[in-house]
Amino acid sequence: MITGFLDKLKNLDIPTCLRVCAGTDGSITFLLEIMTKEDVSVITKNQYLIPADKDTASLFNIDIGDEINYRTVALVAGNKPYVYARSLSPIKRMPPEVKQDMMRADIPIGKILRNHDIETRRDFENLEVEENHEYFECNQVLSRSYKIIHHNHVLMWINELFPVDDRWYL
Amino acid sequence: MITGFLDKLKNLDIPTCLRVCAGTDGSITFLLEIMTKEDVSVITKNQYLIPADKDTASLFNIDIGDEINYRTVALVAGNKPYVYARSLSPIKRMPPEVKQDMMRADIPIGKILRNHDIETRRDFENLEVEENHEYFECNQVLSRSYKIIHHNHVLMWINELFPVDDRWYL
Repeated sequence: MITGFLDKLKNLDIPTCLRVCAGTDGSITFLLEIMTKEDVSVITKNQYLIPADKDTASLFNIDIGDEINYRTVALVAGNKPYVYARSLSPIKRMPPEVKQDMMRADIPIGKILRNHDIETRRDFENLEVEENHEYFECNQVLSRSYKIIHHNHVLMWINELFPVDDRWYL
Repeated sequence: MITGFLDKLKNLDIPTCLRVCAGTDGSITFLLEIMTKEDVSVITKNQYLIPADKDTASLFNIDIGDEINYRTVALVAGNKPYVYARSLSPIKRMPPEVKQDMMRADIPIGKILRNHDIETRRDFENLEVEENHEYFECNQVLSRSYKIIHHNHVLMWINELFPVDDRWYL
């Protein structure tokens, strides 16, 4: 899976910084801050609880109807949006000490995990270029999805959209 | 600690890709592969066991005299070296399933952790630019050190040296 993901990414003719953000197994907010030399803001667009349906219950190994925190955010550096992210996170999988932060708006995931010394791994799922004009003023977005695993459970499923344009020449 | 590390990095006038490699909390080998679009080789320079002295015993919370695996490697992409890394890793802290891979030469750390689904976090220690002509054909190297934490123990201490020159314009 990881080899296929990497090979796909290496064959895309896109700016290096975009390729790096789409391919890192570390924190995106962190990388954006290093690349742009600007502070990165997390702007929350939506946040609410939804009950797990059959697919999400299976994804998180929870029961149908269990509560899932749904959040959509934009990552903005120097007034420019660089990433639009949707996340799903089952309440019962959240370590007690991070639950409050996870439910709060405007704290990046990487920072929450770091602040609470949470050990994780990130498992890549999918990567593709899509025609999509909804989130950014450009013709194409690069979409990737991955899971954050903690104590062998899926703590969070994340889908990130990156605009494919020249804002990445950093 | 993390804020100081980031601020220091953001103020360095160095190529973006070097700043990104020196600042990521993810796998370096992985990033190098994405940046260069080349396969990355791990060339082992040294590997042997040493007994813990007072300082390393304290760092790893082990006994003086306990065995530590010492490894120095170069990360090479497209025949060019990009990183020179020294690592210390106490034998008794290695999860049994990864011990064999950790003692073998030429497998990158990120790949070992990923292959065995090891959950970790990376804690930064230090970052500085040094005059050093020993490892690369250039005048300055960027040196950073960090710890890889697993099950709340220090699994590995790593020091990486990056050449400060134009090979990072990728």
